[in-house]
Amino acid sequence: MLDTLDLDLSLDKNTYESQIETLMRQVRSLQKACWDKKLPMIVVLEGWAAAGKGALVKKMVNYMDPRGFTVHPIWPPNEEEQQYPFLWRFWRRLPVKGSIGIFYHSWYTHVLEDRLFARIEESKIPCVMAEINAFERQLVDDGNAIAKFWIHLSRKELKHRLKEYAKDPLDSWRVRPEDWKQEKHYGKYVDYAEEMLVQTSTGSAPWTLVEGNCQRWAQVKVLTQFAATLTEALDRLHIRTPILPPTPFQEHLNPAEPDLLAQVDLNLALSKDEYKKQLREAQVELLKLQMKIHKHQVPVLVLFEGWDAAGKGGAIKRLTDVLDPRSYAVHPFAAPTDEEKAHHYLWRFWRWLPTAGTIGIDDRSWYGRVLVERVEGFATELEWRRAYQEINEFESQLTNAGYVLVKFWLHISPEEQYQRFISRQNDPFKQYKLTAEDWRNRDNWAFYEVAVNQAIQRTNTPNAPWTIVAANDKYYARVKVIQTVTEAIRTKLKRR
Amino acid sequence: MLDTLDLDLSLDKNTYESQIETLMRQVRSLQKACWDKKLPMIVVLEGWAAAGKGALVKKMVNYMDPRGFTVHPIWPPNEEEQQYPFLWRFWRRLPVKGSIGIFYHSWYTHVLEDRLFARIEESKIPCVMAEINAFERQLVDDGNAIAKFWIHLSRKELKHRLKEYAKDPLDSWRVRPEDWKQEKHYGKYVDYAEEMLVQTSTGSAPWTLVEGNCQRWAQVKVLTQFAATLTEALDRLHIRTPILPPTPFQEHLNPAEPDLLAQVDLNLALSKDEYKKQLREAQVELLKLQMKIHKHQVPVLVLFEGWDAAGKGGAIKRLTDVLDPRSYAVHPFAAPTDEEKAHHYLWRFWRWLPTAGTIGIDDRSWYGRVLVERVEGFATELEWRRAYQEINEFESQLTNAGYVLVKFWLHISPEEQYQRFISRQNDPFKQYKLTAEDWRNRDNWAFYEVAVNQAIQRTNTPNAPWTIVAANDKYYARVKVIQTVTEAIRTKLKRR
Repeated sequence: MLDTLDLDLSLDKNTYESQIETLMRQVRSLQKACWDKKLPMIVVLEGWAAAGKGALVKKMVNYMDPRGFTVHPIWPPNEEEQQYPFLWRFWRRLPVKGSIGIFYHSWYTHVLEDRLFARIEESKIPCVMAEINAFERQLVDDGNAIAKFWIHLSRKELKHRLKEYAKDPLDSWRVRPEDWKQEKHYGKYVDYAEEMLVQTSTGSAPWTLVEGNCQRWAQVKVLTQFAATLTEALDRLHIRTPILPPTPFQEHLNPAEPDLLAQVDLNLALSKDEYKKQLREAQVELLKLQMKIHKHQVPVLVLFEGWDAAGKGGAIKRLTDVLDPRSYAVHPFAAPTDEEKAHHYLWRFWRWLPTAGTIGIDDRSWYGRVLVERVEGFATELEWRRAYQEINEFESQLTNAGYVLVKFWLHISPEEQYQRFISRQNDPFKQYKLTAEDWRNRDNWAFYEVAVNQAIQRTNTPNAPWTIVAANDKYYARVKVIQTVTEAIRTKLKRR
Repeated sequence: MLDTLDLDLSLDKNTYESQIETLMRQVRSLQKACWDKKLPMIVVLEGWAAAGKGALVKKMVNYMDPRGFTVHPIWPPNEEEQQYPFLWRFWRRLPVKGSIGIFYHSWYTHVLEDRLFARIEESKIPCVMAEINAFERQLVDDGNAIAKFWIHLSRKELKHRLKEYAKDPLDSWRVRPEDWKQEKHYGKYVDYAEEMLVQTSTGSAPWTLVEGNCQRWAQVKVLTQFAATLTEALDRLHIRTPILPPTPFQEHLNPAEPDLLAQVDLNLALSKDEYKKQLREAQVELLKLQMKIHKHQVPVLVLFEGWDAAGKGGAIKRLTDVLDPRSYAVHPFAAPTDEEKAHHYLWRFWRWLPTAGTIGIDDRSWYGRVLVERVEGFATELEWRRAYQEINEFESQLTNAGYVLVKFWLHISPEEQYQRFISRQNDPFKQYKLTAEDWRNRDNWAFYEVAVNQAIQRTNTPNAPWTIVAANDKYYARVKVIQTVTEAIRTKLKRR
C-alpha cells in the first residue's frame, strides 16, 4: 500500500506559492464558518519522524485565529494518564464545538511507536484498533469533522533528514533517540503503519496518504484535503438536521421484548436484625476487598440509576460507610455545565473516571442519554438509538482497561414512590430533595418503563452486566448493592 | 505551643453519642444552607499519621448530601503536578461555589512531610509560608470559609496506634513507611508543625488545635468548630454585600500619578526593510532560546493586553511563527465559562499555565479584573482594589517557581484605533473581529486610560515587569515584542 505511493511527486516553488496562498485564504474563511456553525474539527498528523509535521502545523495555523484552534503535541503518557484507558487523555483534549483540535501525533502512537517499542502487547492490537474506530465514529456521529494524514517518507529521505536535523544546532533537539530507531526498523514500522491504515481507514474517518519527500507537495496536499473535509462537514450540516415530526413516545414495549422490571420481586425484604447482620458482613467484606484493589491497583466504577426516591443516596451511603475516604469518590451527575455541553455527551463521564485502586461511584450516569434525554426529547431518536452502541463501546473500553464495572437499577413500585414523595414533602430535611421535576417524571412513568427496559436489555453485556435491585424494602436493597459490588470485585480479582 | 495541649481530654461514650447526634443534624442543615447560598467551604485536615483523620472524614460526610462535597486525598505530587507551582494542584481541586472541599492532607504537606524528608530547601520555607497565607486570604476574600485542623497526638499514642494498625490486616495497608518516620523524628516534626501553625494561623484562616489522643473528643471538637466556621461565614454573607451606590468611574488620574501611557513615543516605527531584517534576527534568536528553555525545562508565560485592534493577534503570530508548534500554546481568554465563574477569578488562569520547557501565550489575562471588570462594573471597587495585591502575589508565585513572566501592553492612539476599526469593517476577513463591544470600549477610552495606568503602575514588579509597546507602527511593535521576550529569557538563563 505505502510502497505504491509515488514519492517523487513534487511541486516547484512558484506553483507552490500560488497554490498555498489560495489555500490559506480558504482555510481562513473555513475556520470562521466552523466557528460560526459550532462545528468541531479534529486533525490527526501521523507519519515518520522529520516528515515535516511541525512545518505543516505552522502553515496550517498561520492564517487561523488563535481563539479557534489548539495544537496538541502528544508525548508518551505521564503517570496519571497511564492509570486510565488509553483514550482518556485524548477525550480530555477534544476540541469544543466550533474549534479545531490539531493532534501532532495522536491515539495512533499506541499502535505505532508503542508497538515498535513493545509497550503494548501484540494480542491487544486488534482490540485497540476497534476502540479507535469506535472513538472516531462516535465523534463523527456527534458532528465532528475528522481529517487524518499519514505523511510518508522513503527510507533514504528519512535518513537524510535525520542527519540534517542532527547537524543543525537549531533542530538537533527535536531528533529523539526513538526517531533513529524508525530508520533502523523501517520495514517493521512500514508494516505496522500499513496494518493501522487499513484497519482504521473507515467511511467516517478515512486516512489521507501524503507523499512527503517533497515538503511543498505534502503541504499543499494536506491543506487541500483539510479544506475539503471541512467544507464537506459544513455542507453536511444542512442535511444533518432534517425537520421531522417529534419522535412519538413508546408507552408499551414491543410484543417480543421482555419486561425485565415486571419480573422483579418487589416483596423481597429483610428484617431489621437480618439487615444489621448482613449489612455488617457485606461491609467488612467490602473493606477487605478495598485493600486488595488498592494493592493490585484495580479501578472500580459503580453506577446508580433508578426511579426518583428509589434510595440511591441511602445505598451509596451504606456502600461508602466503612471505606477509607481516600479510596472512593462519589460523582453525582446532574445537568451538564456549558463546557460539558460543548462536548460529546460522554465527555463528562470520561472526565471523572476513577483512578487505579479506587472506587468511583456515579449517582446517575451516561444512561441519561437513553433515559431522561430520550423521554424528555433532549436527544433525537437517531441520537438515543445510536447511544446503545456508544455506551457498550465505552463500557467495553473500561473493562478492557481492567475496570470492574457494576451497574444498578434501583427498582420500586409507583405506589412506593408516591409514599416516599409524600414523606419527603413532610420532612424539613428532605424537602429539598423533592422537586417539580420529580412529579413530572412520575407522570411519565410508562415512558420511562419502556426506556429502562430497553436500555437494560441492550446494554446488559457479559463484562458490564446490570443488576436490577428490588428496592421497595430499603434494607434489602442496601445489602444487595454491597453484596453485588463485592461479588464483582471478587470475580475480577480471581480472574487476574 | 503544642506541648501545652491537654492530651488527656476525653469524652465518654454516652456524652459523645448525644453530642455527635446534635452536631450531625447541624452539619446537615448547614450544608444545605451552604449550597443554597453558593458559599464555598474548605476544610483542611492535618496532623499525625493515625490521628484518626479517616474516621473523622467519614463522620463529617456521613450526614451530608454527596452532591455538595468532595474529599481530596492528597498524596505526593505526580510528574505533571511537579511541573507547576506547588499550589497549582490545589487550585485545581478548589470547591465550586456552594460546595465543600475536604482536604485530607493539603498544601501544608509541603512544609511538613516535604520538609522532614528534605524534599524542599530550608531557605524556601518562609516564602512557601507566605504563599500559603496569600492563597488562603485570596480565597477567604472571595467568600470561601476555611477551617483548618491540626490533630495532635502524644508520641506514646502515635506509636501505640501505628503498632495497632500494623497488626490489623484491614488497616495495615494504610501505614506507610513514612508514617513510622514521624514517630522516629517526633521532636523535629513537632518543631516543624509549631512553626507552621504559628506562621499560618491568620485572622482569615486560623488553625484549630485538636487534642487527638481521645478520638471521641477530637471528633466532637472538629465538628463543633466546623459548624461554627460555617455558621459564621453564612452570617458574614449578610454583611458582605452592603448596597452601596455604584463606584464612580475615574476619568482622570490622581495628580500624583504618572501617566505612563502618555509618555510612550507613538512615532517609533520601522521601515519595511528594517522590519524584515530585525524580525528575522529576533525570531532566530527566539528559536535558539526555545531550544534552551526546553533543555533546562524553564516555563515561560507571555501575556498580551492592549487596546482593541492594537495588534495583539499579529504580534502573537510573529512571536510563534518560527517556534516548534509543540513548544508553545496560545490561550485566548474571553468571557469565563460557568464552571470558571463558579470559582475564584484567578482559577482559570491557573488552569492554563504552561508546563516546564514550554511557552504559554495569554491573549488577554487576569488583568481583566482591574481593566474591563473595573470599567464595566463587573467587579466591585473592593474587588478590583484588592486585585492588585492578588495579582502581584500570583505573579510572584509563578516567578518563585521559576517562570519567566513577560507582560505587554500594546499601546496605540485613539486615532490609530479608529483607522483600524474602519479598515476592519471594510475587510470581509476581518469584519468578525470588530464587534459592538469594541465601539463601546472605545467610548470608555478615558476610563480605560486611568485603569491601565494604575494597573501597570501597581503591578510593575522587578520579577514581573510590564513592557508598554508603542504599537501605532505594527512593524516596530512586533519586533519589540519578540526582542523583549528573548531578552527576558536570556536574563533568566544567565541567572540560573
